[in-house]
Amino acid sequence: MDNIREQLKAVGARYNKSLPHYDACIQLVSAAYRKLEDDADFAAYGRFAGKPAVDYYTFSNNFFTSRPVRPDIYISSYDELIHSIEQLSRSLENRPSRLNNEDIETSNRVVYTAVMSVACCYDLWQRGSRKTPGTFFEFLMAALLQKMLPAAVFSKHISLASLLNDTETGEGVPVDIEALESDEEEGGAASVSTDLVIGMPDRRGGVVIPLKITTRERIVQPFAHQRILNSAFGEAAYQSLLVCISETQLDEKTRSVKQVCVPGTVKLFQKYLAPIGGLYYCDIPQRYFAADMQKIIPVKSVGDFFRDLAKIMELNGQL
Amino acid sequence: MDNIREQLKAVGARYNKSLPHYDACIQLVSAAYRKLEDDADFAAYGRFAGKPAVDYYTFSNNFFTSRPVRPDIYISSYDELIHSIEQLSRSLENRPSRLNNEDIETSNRVVYTAVMSVACCYDLWQRGSRKTPGTFFEFLMAALLQKMLPAAVFSKHISLASLLNDTETGEGVPVDIEALESDEEEGGAASVSTDLVIGMPDRRGGVVIPLKITTRERIVQPFAHQRILNSAFGEAAYQSLLVCISETQLDEKTRSVKQVCVPGTVKLFQKYLAPIGGLYYCDIPQRYFAADMQKIIPVKSVGDFFRDLAKIMELNGQL
Repeated sequence: MDNIREQLKAVGARYNKSLPHYDACIQLVSAAYRKLEDDADFAAYGRFAGKPAVDYYTFSNNFFTSRPVRPDIYISSYDELIHSIEQLSRSLENRPSRLNNEDIETSNRVVYTAVMSVACCYDLWQRGSRKTPGTFFEFLMAALLQKMLPAAVFSKHISLASLLNDTETGEGVPVDIEALESDEEEGGAASVSTDLVIGMPDRRGGVVIPLKITTRERIVQPFAHQRILNSAFGEAAYQSLLVCISETQLDEKTRSVKQVCVPGTVKLFQKYLAPIGGLYYCDIPQRYFAADMQKIIPVKSVGDFFRDLAKIMELNGQL
Repeated sequence: MDNIREQLKAVGARYNKSLPHYDACIQLVSAAYRKLEDDADFAAYGRFAGKPAVDYYTFSNNFFTSRPVRPDIYISSYDELIHSIEQLSRSLENRPSRLNNEDIETSNRVVYTAVMSVACCYDLWQRGSRKTPGTFFEFLMAALLQKMLPAAVFSKHISLASLLNDTETGEGVPVDIEALESDEEEGGAASVSTDLVIGMPDRRGGVVIPLKITTRERIVQPFAHQRILNSAFGEAAYQSLLVCISETQLDEKTRSVKQVCVPGTVKLFQKYLAPIGGLYYCDIPQRYFAADMQKIIPVKSVGDFFRDLAKIMELNGQL
């Protein structure tokens, strides 16, 4: 596990310096996947009592049980994983706006397997680091999107300092939404940081990509941020695509899995805060896939996300 | 500790059945306060490097250290605590809209001491129950407000079902914001639940009171909820008063305390989501008390909260 922790640190160091970090991500995923193969059991845990029921597995060692994993999405052999990663990488480089159904399924499974293998290693062997799997999700998506959009301008913040015309914040100092909430400290600047922002070179605006492993009460953030961006830059400037994994909770008593969903909340936010462009999941919760939700907000797979984003960038002359 | 856990359970049971629970709250606080006196050390831990610096103490036993506590706000003897509780109870019953400065300071210290004593017991002897102190904060505030406003209608939800005119939610089914986010499950109803809502008998609307021990990324919720309420019922119907405690974090390495603040975020939310009526803290973070914040949102003590709320209710003919 020391090895995996070190590799993750190295990925983060490269990412923070804006150095290419795709290869380092894939090496880390390989190591995590193999560690689970070698040192953990992967077996049925319980089901989500939906229509139809959904089976979940968990990884376990002698001491701990991992978060629930969908065996139908998690890639089941190392060779297939490596092959699928290569396929994804090729299709993102060559035809991201024309991904076919097979490409879409492959990308979805690769992202799921990559993120869940790292997350489950942390569940079993490094339980103190609760936020790390989410951080890795961000690293991985940034790596894949940089492959897909080599000319795009990526950032983590949208400066909103000009909205707050008080002297303290200072013009030009970034005011950033999520840093707003997490990193902004006393006296710090204000901004709207939303995990990943892909800018448009010829105009203000772009695509905001919040990335979350389980949303919980944080589901409100992308809608609130979109609202602020609309107020700040007009409704056409930015659009948000929310990308998520694993909206689940183990119930140890009944050995079952809950898909934790708040469809009414999401509908309210979409209608009364600000509409976002889509809700993308590797493992779409059943309740979110229903027709009443789709009427109000597009709910699709993370495979679809790559194609939708590529199309947006193509429309903006970026691809 | 079994005793304290049982008492808290009993308070919750009464609260959920809408039975009077003030006496049970005070008994629990007495037990928690005395357990800390008897079984824990209370000593200086470190300071927040503000201007001026702020000293923080912690409770500790042989195994654990509690969250940071402000010794200048935490009441320092059991006799003074009991005396202050009686004073608070009398002033809330008799003249809540005319609390004087001494009443305000006393109420603030009572709420702080009561909530922190229960929270610190959980920090030292029941570390698994992370959410319990926040739940007790809600119980206690409800008990005090019921004393102050015996005729008011309290609830935990604002029905928003009519906003979502889809058949599944069903008219009359409550759609509630925080339940939205926490309790709402698959297929469940949607609503805006915001800890405490005090209704107005003769019209739709009221005062929404979100209660939080540390806000973290949840600071966005009250503003987002206010925005939805404005959309749903017009801007005059509801106002939100956010009541908080303990925006702090221990730094074990340097034995210092951080006041975790996001002033830029709060300003953005207040300006671009929806303005709330005030931000009330037992232990106001220094950064939030500054003039640039006060220009945009009133930031006051929880003692002031009681008087402000009483005045609002008085204006509405409720007191």
